Amino acid sequence: MSAPLKLDDETQDLLFRAARTASEFADEPVAEETVRAVYDLVKYGPTEFNSTPLRIVLIRSEEARARLLPCMVDANRDKTGRAPLVAVLAADIDFHEELPRLFPFFPQAKDVFYGDVAVRDHSAKLNAGLQIAYFIIGLRAAGLDVGPMSGFDAEAMDREFFPDGAHKSLVVLNIGKPAGEAGHPRLPRLEYDEVVTAV
Amino acid sequence: MSAPLKLDDETQDLLFRAARTASEFADEPVAEETVRAVYDLVKYGPTEFNSTPLRIVLIRSEEARARLLPCMVDANRDKTGRAPLVAVLAADIDFHEELPRLFPFFPQAKDVFYGDVAVRDHSAKLNAGLQIAYFIIGLRAAGLDVGPMSGFDAEAMDREFFPDGAHKSLVVLNIGKPAGEAGHPRLPRLEYDEVVTAV
Repeated sequence: MSAPLKLDDETQDLLFRAARTASEFADEPVAEETVRAVYDLVKYGPTEFNSTPLRIVLIRSEEARARLLPCMVDANRDKTGRAPLVAVLAADIDFHEELPRLFPFFPQAKDVFYGDVAVRDHSAKLNAGLQIAYFIIGLRAAGLDVGPMSGFDAEAMDREFFPDGAHKSLVVLNIGKPAGEAGHPRLPRLEYDEVVTAV
Repeated sequence: MSAPLKLDDETQDLLFRAARTASEFADEPVAEETVRAVYDLVKYGPTEFNSTPLRIVLIRSEEARARLLPCMVDANRDKTGRAPLVAVLAADIDFHEELPRLFPFFPQAKDVFYGDVAVRDHSAKLNAGLQIAYFIIGLRAAGLDVGPMSGFDAEAMDREFFPDGAHKSLVVLNIGKPAGEAGHPRLPRLEYDEVVTAV
């Protein structure tokens, strides 16, 4: 236990310190049950007005993967083709339609705050971004490795998987059971004093 | 242990299931050492090209809090005035300056991908969003409660705390030790089948 954190070292390693972005995975499927258990934990992560704008498309069929791969940049195509499971993570710009149910204290938020599509666009992307991180942490909590990518043609991805025009693809995530050690040493991080300023 | 997750139930509760957004906190300070321990864990969370664009201003002085509060919307001002610690979380739009150090495999990323400020703006906000979520999880892992807010005048906040014009305030976070039970029941969440589609 590294005080002042309440997580044991093994959990700190599992979620953050030893976890590494993966391009290669064990040749085993990722069960629906696992993704469901992850979602049912991380759905509680906080978002603005409980708006929870993240939407997830799991690429399960060969046909869907054949539609996905041309949207990826060259450098991400092969590894995305090999990953046991791929998820497309998108922000629902029309998340406000659900607010009367998700934030019943103030159902007017749907129109008062989010009548403007530019406001919704900002909010949806920010809060879906939070939820993508919760999902990554949850997948790691299930013992899975992830490879998050933003190297894809987002407009093509949206056309292919979200033809309603109201979703913005933000991250594509390769997911699988760990294959072994990461291929390169951990990259450096900015020091606390470079990132945090007290005023 | 709720299979298939590798976190014990207590940790699941600490990070997600029992954790609740807080407006009231115990009347105790949050030590610098704690914030440092949190940062030194969550800095390892993945970001695009290891860009880690999140920058954090901790409001420690009364003078800084007096500058902060007028930027908050009315509904957030009192609770932000009372919180033991407040953090302003912003995306550094000029994060690319650090890339040759943070992603030495491909130092050209600084110019090749991020020469365009609109590309940097999107990337900085998305990846700082991921890091805000990692930070929230890390604060909870330290036994702290958090109250994330997006109800503030972001332009005024940027002028006040990031006068270089290269940072975008995304979230203001009230932080403190728990005061007790949340004041209202947990809000509903979307069900798995409303959020996740397999194709």
